[in-house]
Amino acid sequence: MRISELSRRSGVPNATIKYYLREGLLPPGRATAATQAEYDDSHLRRLRLIRALTGVRGLSVASAKQVLDAVSAHGDDTHRLLGIVFGIWPSEAGRPEARADDGTPGPNPEAAALVDAMGWSVSEHNPARQVVDQTLRTLRGLGVDYDWRALLPYAELAARTARYDLDRLEAVTDPLEKAEQAVLLTFLLEPALMALRRLAQEDESTTRHGPDASPPGRW
Amino acid sequence: MRISELSRRSGVPNATIKYYLREGLLPPGRATAATQAEYDDSHLRRLRLIRALTGVRGLSVASAKQVLDAVSAHGDDTHRLLGIVFGIWPSEAGRPEARADDGTPGPNPEAAALVDAMGWSVSEHNPARQVVDQTLRTLRGLGVDYDWRALLPYAELAARTARYDLDRLEAVTDPLEKAEQAVLLTFLLEPALMALRRLAQEDESTTRHGPDASPPGRW
Repeated sequence: MRISELSRRSGVPNATIKYYLREGLLPPGRATAATQAEYDDSHLRRLRLIRALTGVRGLSVASAKQVLDAVSAHGDDTHRLLGIVFGIWPSEAGRPEARADDGTPGPNPEAAALVDAMGWSVSEHNPARQVVDQTLRTLRGLGVDYDWRALLPYAELAARTARYDLDRLEAVTDPLEKAEQAVLLTFLLEPALMALRRLAQEDESTTRHGPDASPPGRW
Repeated sequence: MRISELSRRSGVPNATIKYYLREGLLPPGRATAATQAEYDDSHLRRLRLIRALTGVRGLSVASAKQVLDAVSAHGDDTHRLLGIVFGIWPSEAGRPEARADDGTPGPNPEAAALVDAMGWSVSEHNPARQVVDQTLRTLRGLGVDYDWRALLPYAELAARTARYDLDRLEAVTDPLEKAEQAVLLTFLLEPALMALRRLAQEDESTTRHGPDASPPGRW
């Protein structure tokens, strides 16, 4: 297809597609004339992936490019690919702080204790360690008596979630598709999983406080 | 304590504290002279809560004020309070779109099917419904064959998480403290729960692919 059709089918403006091409986020099409190129379904899929990363979760174009390069390079190695995906955090204030350039992991003693208690095998470089320690520090700064032990029941449930995730991923055979799904299932699914927790919290609250309690509403 | 000590103990600059006082986020201190007021530990705690909402998860000052006003007004009604807390989403791109002002909930058929299948009692106005439908639409737009049924195992785990959350909340007796914990446990804990999932995913991947697989690293 021509770039105009790629634009129409993806809903991404022509100028934006050209920008992604210049920045190397989107591989070039097959040249059919000096100023024309043909694009195919792989371009369409890649374009949608770019939009998902930059739009839905707010990654910068530069971060999206890093992710996509990594996906292309390691799509045939699920384990390595997941290691890359774990490094993606949305660009909100809660993302892990930048690391020292020497590669030394910051000290995250609570994550270490939790990983140890769970018997998990997790790299020192997984940024999720830092998120755990930061969150717990914030909670205690707010006077909440909460440490890594309080996270253990959640960690047990996370382990079961991870088995669903990996089962689903192993059912995909095409390497590029598997790479994409790893990104989608880790990164894009997160808001939905938090939404499920909130739905379940409301139900649990209704169950405990009875139908006569004032219903949660808009505010 | 004087405002200078409040500033020192909270780490929040003097000028920022005065701004919060003007905007009504922080209740006034007890006037001791024409230009002096005394603050106590409740101010310190409130100040930390403001910082947590605006800093860690990126709420606007106006949204933080809405939350705090609601917490003050309904702190003695856990069910209603949770309804308020469910309305808080971080200011990233993934937050639910603004609703029509007539209070009509948008059509979120997949969330409705999921809630129904789980037998949950959840208000039509819970914004999490919209997050579920938006996420699933995004995934399908990316060519991933994924609908609400695929979320059912996660929903079962979310229900167990909600029971831990509510158990913890019921152990708190002081109304203001309970209100604060509801905010903290729903809103501030979310990054840590997502971090646990990523740690568990890495462990599961290592378990399945063996220690000889290339370890996830920095990229």
